[in-house]
Formats: sequence, C-alpha cells, structure tokens
Amino acid sequence: MATVKLVQYNEASPPARAVLDDILQTRQVSDVNNFWKALANAPATLQNVWSQVKTVMQPGALDALTKELVYIAVSAANGCEYCVHSHTAAARAKGMTPEQHAELLAVIALASQTNALANSLQVPVDPAFQADTSA
Amino acid sequence: MATVKLVQYNEASPPARAVLDDILQTRQVSDVNNFWKALANAPATLQNVWSQVKTVMQPGALDALTKELVYIAVSAANGCEYCVHSHTAAARAKGMTPEQHAELLAVIALASQTNALANSLQVPVDPAFQADTSA
Amino acid sequence: MATVKLVQYNEASPPARAVLDDILQTRQVSDVNNFWKALANAPATLQNVWSQVKTVMQPGALDALTKELVYIAVSAANGCEYCVHSHTAAARAKGMTPEQHAELLAVIALASQTNALANSLQVPVDPAFQADTSA
Amino acid sequence: MATVKLVQYNEASPPARAVLDDILQTRQVSDVNNFWKALANAPATLQNVWSQVKTVMQPGALDALTKELVYIAVSAANGCEYCVHSHTAAARAKGMTPEQHAELLAVIALASQTNALANSLQVPVDPAFQADTSA
Amino acid sequence: MATVKLVQYNEASPPARAVLDDILQTRQVSDVNNFWKALANAPATLQNVWSQVKTVMQPGALDALTKELVYIAVSAANGCEYCVHSHTAAARAKGMTPEQHAELLAVIALASQTNALANSLQVPVDPAFQADTSA
Amino acid sequence: MATVKLVQYNEASPPARAVLDDILQTRQVSDVNNFWKALANAPATLQNVWSQVKTVMQPGALDALTKELVYIAVSAANGCEYCVHSHTAAARAKGMTPEQHAELLAVIALASQTNALANSLQVPVDPAFQADTSA
Repeated sequence: MATVKLVQYNEASPPARAVLDDILQTRQVSDVNNFWKALANAPATLQNVWSQVKTVMQPGALDALTKELVYIAVSAANGCEYCVHSHTAAARAKGMTPEQHAELLAVIALASQTNALANSLQVPVDPAFQADTSA
Repeated sequence: MATVKLVQYNEASPPARAVLDDILQTRQVSDVNNFWKALANAPATLQNVWSQVKTVMQPGALDALTKELVYIAVSAANGCEYCVHSHTAAARAKGMTPEQHAELLAVIALASQTNALANSLQVPVDPAFQADTSA
Repeated sequence: MATVKLVQYNEASPPARAVLDDILQTRQVSDVNNFWKALANAPATLQNVWSQVKTVMQPGALDALTKELVYIAVSAANGCEYCVHSHTAAARAKGMTPEQHAELLAVIALASQTNALANSLQVPVDPAFQADTSA
Repeated sequence: MATVKLVQYNEASPPARAVLDDILQTRQVSDVNNFWKALANAPATLQNVWSQVKTVMQPGALDALTKELVYIAVSAANGCEYCVHSHTAAARAKGMTPEQHAELLAVIALASQTNALANSLQVPVDPAFQADTSA
Repeated sequence: MATVKLVQYNEASPPARAVLDDILQTRQVSDVNNFWKALANAPATLQNVWSQVKTVMQPGALDALTKELVYIAVSAANGCEYCVHSHTAAARAKGMTPEQHAELLAVIALASQTNALANSLQVPVDPAFQADTSA
Repeated sequence: MATVKLVQYNEASPPARAVLDDILQTRQVSDVNNFWKALANAPATLQNVWSQVKTVMQPGALDALTKELVYIAVSAANGCEYCVHSHTAAARAKGMTPEQHAELLAVIALASQTNALANSLQVPVDPAFQADTSA
C-alpha cells in the first residue's frame, strides 16, 4: 500500500492531468505506472520529475540502455524496491540481455563489497587520483 | 588516516605479497593504490577481492567503461569517498569523456531523487513488471 | 512477517507490560502498534525507545508536526517502510495537509538529488561554512 | 578534493555562466559555493538543480526554515558531508536557534534508531495506517 | 516477486547446477533457499558468492554465531529484508538465544543513533584514534 | 570541522558538565572524545546517548568485544567515518586481534555484497524463515 492515494486519470487535477497526458502520449501507453499515479498528488513534483526523465534518460553521450543500468545500480544501492523493478523492466525493454543483467549484478555486488571495505578501513584517497581533474 | 596500517610491499606477508605482485604485473604499475595496501592486512580478503576485480571488470557482455560507470554510481549511492575517486579515475583512464561524466551524474541524480520519492510514497510495484521474469 | 513474534498484551513479560500500559494510557488507545509488539521481545529496548519517543517528540523549540516531518524524511532516506507509514500517519494526525505533504516530498527529493551529486563530485566544504560554529 | 575541476566564473561556459549569474543575483553574493562550481561542469544539471532549489526551497505550505531542517535530516541520513554543512549554515541564516538545532538532532537520532529496529525486526505495517490514504 | 525467474534445480545450467549440488550437499538439505535460485541466473556470481560464504562464515578467529550477528547488523543497516530474515534464521540455527537477539538489537539501535548524530555534527576524528594503527 | 562548536569542559552548561563528569570518571580518562564535546551542545541528547552507551555496551548475553564488532559493522554500513574510527579503537582496547579484525572485514564485505544482490534481485523471503518466530 502507498502512503497516498493512487490518483486515477479521471481524478487528477488539471495540472497533474496535463503531465499524465504527456506521459501517455510520449510512451504510447493506455495507462501510467503507479509511480506517476502516486506523484499526481504533488503536481509540481510530478511535472518536475517527468520533465527530468524525458530529458535525462534519452540517448546522448551515453546510450539509453547504459543509463538504465546505472539507474538499476543506484536503486539497488538505495534499497528502492519499486525502482529496481521498474528500471529492470525498462532495461529489458531497451534490450538488456540476461548476460548483461548477470554482469551488471556482478559489478553491483563487487562495488558494494569494496565500498564496505573502504569505509571499514577508511582508506585515504591516493594523491594520484587528484591529477585527473587538472586537465 | 586509515583504521589499519597501510602495508608497504616489503612489509607484506608472503600471501599478501603474491597478490600485490599480481596487481603490479597485471596493471603494469610500480606501486599499488592505498586500497590494496590497507587490504594487505587481510590477505584472504585481498586475494578474494583482487580475483573478483580481475574477473568482473573485464569486458564481456558489458564493456569495461560501462562497468566503471556502474561502479561510480553504486559508490556514490553508498557514500564511499575512496571508491568514487578511484573509479572516476579508472573511468577516465578507460576513455570517459566530460560529456559522458556529466550524463552519468544526471542519471545518478535523477535515480536518487525518484528512489527517495518511491520510498516516501511506498508505491506498490505494478503487476506488469512481473511478467518480465516469466520468459 | 516479522523476524520475531509479535507479543500481545497478555503474553508480555511484566517489564514489557508496564511499558505497554504506559503507551496505551498516554495515547488513549485500546491496542499498540506492531512496532511495540515486536519490541516487547526486548523489554529494555522497548522501555528505552518509548521513553525517548515521549520526550523527544513532544513540542519544544520545534513544534510536534515539524518533528514528524523530519522523522518521515529520515525514514525515507533510510528506506524504512514501516517508519514511513507510521510517521506519515502520525503527521496527518497532527494536522499535516496534502499541500504540506507535497512540499515535504519535494524537499526530500531535492535533498536526495543534491546529496548524490555532492557525493559523486566529492565537493570540498567551503571555508565559509566553518565560521558558523565560532559564535 | 573534488572529482572534477571547480569551475571559476570566468572559466564557465555560456550556459553555465547564465546560471551562475542568476545565483549571484538571487542570493546577492559575490561568489557561489563550491557545489555550484563543481556542477558547472555539467551545465544542464546545474540549470536543473538550481531551478529546483529556487522553486522548492521558497516558503509555501511549509516555511523556509522547516524545509532546511528536513534537508539537513535527509543529508545526515545519506551521509553527505557537504550537504550537512551547507544546509546547517543555511538553516542558521534562516534563524535556526541552538535549541532548535538540538531538538532536530534528537529527532534525527531517534528516527535513525527506530528505523534500524524496524528493519531488524521487519515489523509488518499496521492495517490502520492504510486508512489514512482513503480520504 | 523477484526481478528474475527463480531457477529450479532441474532447470539450472550445468555450471549453476554444480554449485547447487555443492550447497545441497554441504548443508544437507533437500532444496536451496530462494537467494540461490535467483542467483542461478548468473552462474559465475553464484559460484563466487557461494565460495565466499563457505570460506568466510566458517569459524576462525571469530566463531560462527558472532559472524551471523555481524551479518544481521550489516543487513539491517542496508535495509535488506531478505538478508535480515535469512541470517536471523541462521543465527538461531547456530544457537542465538532471545536474550542475545535482544542485545544485538540494542547495539544496532545505539550504533544507528550515534552514526546519525556523528554525521549530523560532522565530528572530527580524534587524533588519539590514529595511534591505534601504528603497532 | 564540525557543524557545531566543540564544547570544552569548562565551557559546558551544568547539565552537560554533569554528564562529562560521569564519562571522565567511568572511563578514568582526563578528557572526553570529540563526539561528546560536540553533543554537549545538546545536553538532553548527551545525557540520553551516554546513558545508553553505559547500559547497552556492557557485557551481558553478548560479551563487550562482540558488541564492538557489531558497532563497527553498522557504522561501516552507514558510512560513519567518526564511528568506524572510534569503535575500531574501542574494539582494539577490548582485545580485538588483527586476525579477528580481518575476519570481521570479510563478513562485512560478504554481507554488503549479498545485500546488494538480494536488493537487485528482489528475492522473495522463503516461507521457511517464518517458522523461526513461532516458538
């Protein structure tokens, strides 16, 4: 259950409905996911987040699938059940193969392990890493 | 400062030194990073982590740069200062451009934002996401 | 399901029951929430946490609703499903309006986003912030 | 040190400089904080984040100080050193008293404690919390 | 629901089945837990994780129960529902008493509280702690 | 630097000084750590936290060293630099050997890895784990 009512299309306020219309049209779907129905209680945030999703997740210097893989990784690290599910589905829709998924999981697992070790050991940052920002 | 002594090469125990030798040779460097010097206090974990790094981070179904981008994302989400630095440097060494870095940051920021919203709203997972695992 | 038995009132040990009695009386309710039933397995912690809740959450230099909003924010950041639910309900009981909830969500989302960016960029703290503690 | 160069005003690209100009003018300051100098490497995100800060943090259904308190709480939970510093300074600039700061810390501490307990106990959400979303 | 299919024994690929066989034999059980069925989609990671579990969790300088208590603590801090459940069950199987569980919870709660306070206050590390690594 | 002034003994308010006196006497030291000097700005929380430390960390069903190991693990998972340092020092003072520290790190690393995998895979909790709470 959500902490707010899931707002259906015909219950949405005009500003929320305008965003929902854009999601439906952009994605060519007949209904939006629960995330957007929950966010429809906060139309300004709904508008803001959807606008970012449209801009940020489109292919650019990084392709669309790579962006979804990064999204899954962040969501897993933050323990967001909904986001892990929705972006794993999105990655598959954008062509993620089982082999790619398996390698993604291996990197997430390795990074989480070394993050915990570096935090436990409080390893000081090597001076050599600093030079990378000087160019 | 670290919570352990940073073990220099000539101070390392034989099992730790064997791993350090492999790092030096594999990476063709004259010294290892602080992370490995700290881990040298725990030779079994040093061996285990290095073995995983060699296997997991090599190109496969995902290329090496994509893996570094995922690594940065997980490290940022986990708040690991050392890992963010070392893997940002590694990504640059593998060709990450400023434009790719900027887009990576945008995805990390967006994912963190929607993770927080989904957790605040406790959005129920859409049944449609479930079908993705049935194939 | 919980990792422990939910202790009902008539099953509680005397020290746990004394705390449950105080919760029932203070809140003027006929039953306690699941959190307290789970904690009743650890009477010393039950006593300690309830004592803090009574003291910390009462109005002081901050009003009771502001405290609940902060509680929701921490709980969302920590990914605690139970706490997000219970303190969203508590905030509503203390008068949180839908407009306030929507603005709370926007701040949580923005903070999570800039937290991730600052962690990804490892931005050094400005010296100017230090002066604030000197007075 | 940062993972990117801190971009000074006269080094900024035109789109980044336009945002920096708006920050300088809106805040009536002679220089921007390091966070914005780091973000200036990613002009689209700089524009996006600053736009959100201007909109989200202004007084509305919640006053400006309450929003800063929530921001501190999220930043502490996410372990963001920079953000804890910058928003503690911002809260003081908006009138946070030492007594309010002390109470904020107490709520953050209590919430973190019960978050950990609820996660350790995996307490099931009470059905009663659900009714709150039906109105 | 999982983001992948739970692979049953007779559906597993040969390399995954070899690991499942080792789990079944080592633990003397007739079926493996869901975690391993999910990981069977990624045989290399399945092999890697199981190998670590067998090595790391066996008694050594720390006894097996202490290791499970640490495992529960990390899992609670990371908000991993599955891991909290599976390792609480494992700790009980290795003799954890209700009194030990209650004290474990108290330490987890206290640590989470002081972690949040130290992060909120950004307390500088005492120089005295450094001497500990010099021996 | 801290977000608050570190309160020295002779600057402390009477209620804070009473707690500092108890710390000095209980630990038989000539000065308190920075954590307590920072908390002295919030005397009620100082009193509350110190009271819990004295009660929770004393030997009981779990010995004092085991409690410190759990404390380190939680602090590493939460990314608390100060707490990792102070409790690693405390564990050494209570007899933690380098071998025990190395095994602790290995468990923290393994748990962090499987936490990330279980969160990425959203593995459903096995029904068998539920029976553990029925006794």
